[in-house]
Amino acid sequence: MTFSAADHAAMARALALAANGLCTTTPNPRVGCVLVRDGEIVGEGWHQRAGEAHAEVHALRAAGERAAGATAYVTLEPCSHFGRTPPCCEALVAAGVRRVVAAMEDPNPLVAGSGLARLRAAGIDTAHGLLESEARELNIGFISRMTRGRPWVRLKAAATLDGKTALANGVSQWITGEAARSDGHRWRARACAILTGIGTVREDDPQLTVRGVPCERQPLRVVVDARLEIGREARILQGAPVLIATAIEEGERAAELRAAGHEVLSLANEAGKVALPALLQALAARGINELHVEAGFKLNGSLLREGCVDELLLYMAPMLVGDSAQGMFNLSALTSLDQALRLDIRDMRRIGEDFRVLARLRA
Amino acid sequence: MTFSAADHAAMARALALAANGLCTTTPNPRVGCVLVRDGEIVGEGWHQRAGEAHAEVHALRAAGERAAGATAYVTLEPCSHFGRTPPCCEALVAAGVRRVVAAMEDPNPLVAGSGLARLRAAGIDTAHGLLESEARELNIGFISRMTRGRPWVRLKAAATLDGKTALANGVSQWITGEAARSDGHRWRARACAILTGIGTVREDDPQLTVRGVPCERQPLRVVVDARLEIGREARILQGAPVLIATAIEEGERAAELRAAGHEVLSLANEAGKVALPALLQALAARGINELHVEAGFKLNGSLLREGCVDELLLYMAPMLVGDSAQGMFNLSALTSLDQALRLDIRDMRRIGEDFRVLARLRA
Repeated sequence: MTFSAADHAAMARALALAANGLCTTTPNPRVGCVLVRDGEIVGEGWHQRAGEAHAEVHALRAAGERAAGATAYVTLEPCSHFGRTPPCCEALVAAGVRRVVAAMEDPNPLVAGSGLARLRAAGIDTAHGLLESEARELNIGFISRMTRGRPWVRLKAAATLDGKTALANGVSQWITGEAARSDGHRWRARACAILTGIGTVREDDPQLTVRGVPCERQPLRVVVDARLEIGREARILQGAPVLIATAIEEGERAAELRAAGHEVLSLANEAGKVALPALLQALAARGINELHVEAGFKLNGSLLREGCVDELLLYMAPMLVGDSAQGMFNLSALTSLDQALRLDIRDMRRIGEDFRVLARLRA
Repeated sequence: MTFSAADHAAMARALALAANGLCTTTPNPRVGCVLVRDGEIVGEGWHQRAGEAHAEVHALRAAGERAAGATAYVTLEPCSHFGRTPPCCEALVAAGVRRVVAAMEDPNPLVAGSGLARLRAAGIDTAHGLLESEARELNIGFISRMTRGRPWVRLKAAATLDGKTALANGVSQWITGEAARSDGHRWRARACAILTGIGTVREDDPQLTVRGVPCERQPLRVVVDARLEIGREARILQGAPVLIATAIEEGERAAELRAAGHEVLSLANEAGKVALPALLQALAARGINELHVEAGFKLNGSLLREGCVDELLLYMAPMLVGDSAQGMFNLSALTSLDQALRLDIRDMRRIGEDFRVLARLRA
């Protein structure tokens, strides 16, 4: 399949529109749509919130009668099933669209291709694969949930140039500067949920809310707390309900937390700890596409050891604090570099006086 | 002083010419010269090796009679004294040059400005400060030696993303990839000397020569070996003579090393270790402008603690090895982040699959 420069331009616009929904579409994917007729954009739209109109419907409404004979560029294959809204395929057919180009097929293997097939059955030209890698990046979490049954897990850490996250006495505020912290809030904002551990709750008492950046909904906050030790006064328990993953049987503390509106999920593994892969599955079942982790040495290490991390979002501050300070990750001792966890650098840039590295764990 | 676009272009060319001497002019500075008459380059040159002609002389030779009435762009103030070659000022005067623009004055405070004054006395227009910061970068080591009596010290380290330089069992080959190692040899090549410690000699037995990149002279190799424990079979003792800095009194081993052609320098501090600031002074006295450090946890830590490092050249490999592995720097334990060694990032880029950070210690 080859695409013209005009096709590329229209899909690039559709992707930019889709990105408007970065922080709001959860649990749905971010989707944009552009309708082009005779070389002119006659309608465009993006999906804003679950339960509201899909991108195609917004674009068709904007185009009105000019949708007839147009080409629709959609960042994701249009749906052919009734969900919370009627199928977009029917709307595209009804509007008289002549051609539909999708950046990618539906990542759900059970329905992949069925939307485009429905369109072709109605006599519409279809194509897909235009700017597909960009479209996949945009919905990396949704795709992960659909294809792997687990969220895309992005572990955020802040360290010094010599790989330390805190001094030996626990002091860690603030290793990175204001620009890096603000950037961190932007990554929180796009996540469906934020995960931390009881150690971080105890030491830093974080709220784990999105602050200082526009965000009309707050991500679900999740605490890994194997023995339900979270204090009644913990700041994370104020405000919206929290999901607490634990390894103990039901009990008084669990009842108390539930009475306060929080969810307590018991997921023990054989070692009496929280079964982290099972927790990821449970989060996916709750519609969590992107999981943002801000935890400490131990939980970060456990997540990495158990293959529960997809991406590292690492802020590095240009300072040295020496080897007695707190290291980054509690991993098993290695005897050969072949055993190291390897990553691929995706992005690297300065953020204020610090820098940020985005790197993906190799499969 | 304002400079025209043509002035800038000519000086930029002179700087590019000067950089041709990056690895060869030691202990002299890297200097380039461009002669422009009627908007046309009539001669150019750069200093190649100590004892050979200066940049101005090369450019004047190339210009011949066309130097009369020209403007000379020089990256460093022309010398007015007899050194190993006659003063360049006299040559410029004799050639009938009308104007001399220097990127910077001579960094030696004892002679700064005297070359330009000599030219003005001969009726030549002079100016300086054009692309001065670029010129200073090019000769950062020479300037350091002239103004501080010590070399510019660039500490090279290679670490994982979690700040580890080796596994607990000592394995460190190879954390970074081939591209990073080759880049490291390019930085060795521009240095006047390479410094390491007895720990690294013992563990890695390095040659510390420049390999795989063009280099017509090898930097002096310096080993910090407080108790003269270096083994007779150490690879660094093969080939060119080595400077060994020690803290012990003269003895049999020193005599043996000297008999083999090496230099042994006794520089003890009160703690019975090698006095590192004194070693830097001694290296400056030997004409070392840029000192490249490739040492281990302890010596790197000592150099940092004693304020003997100007710049960090850090290669980071996208892998994680966990906290039991070897940390980067042996520094004192801190109780507050105010005590951290702070740096400013000068450059950051990918090198193959790794990345490289160049950061300067704040004064």
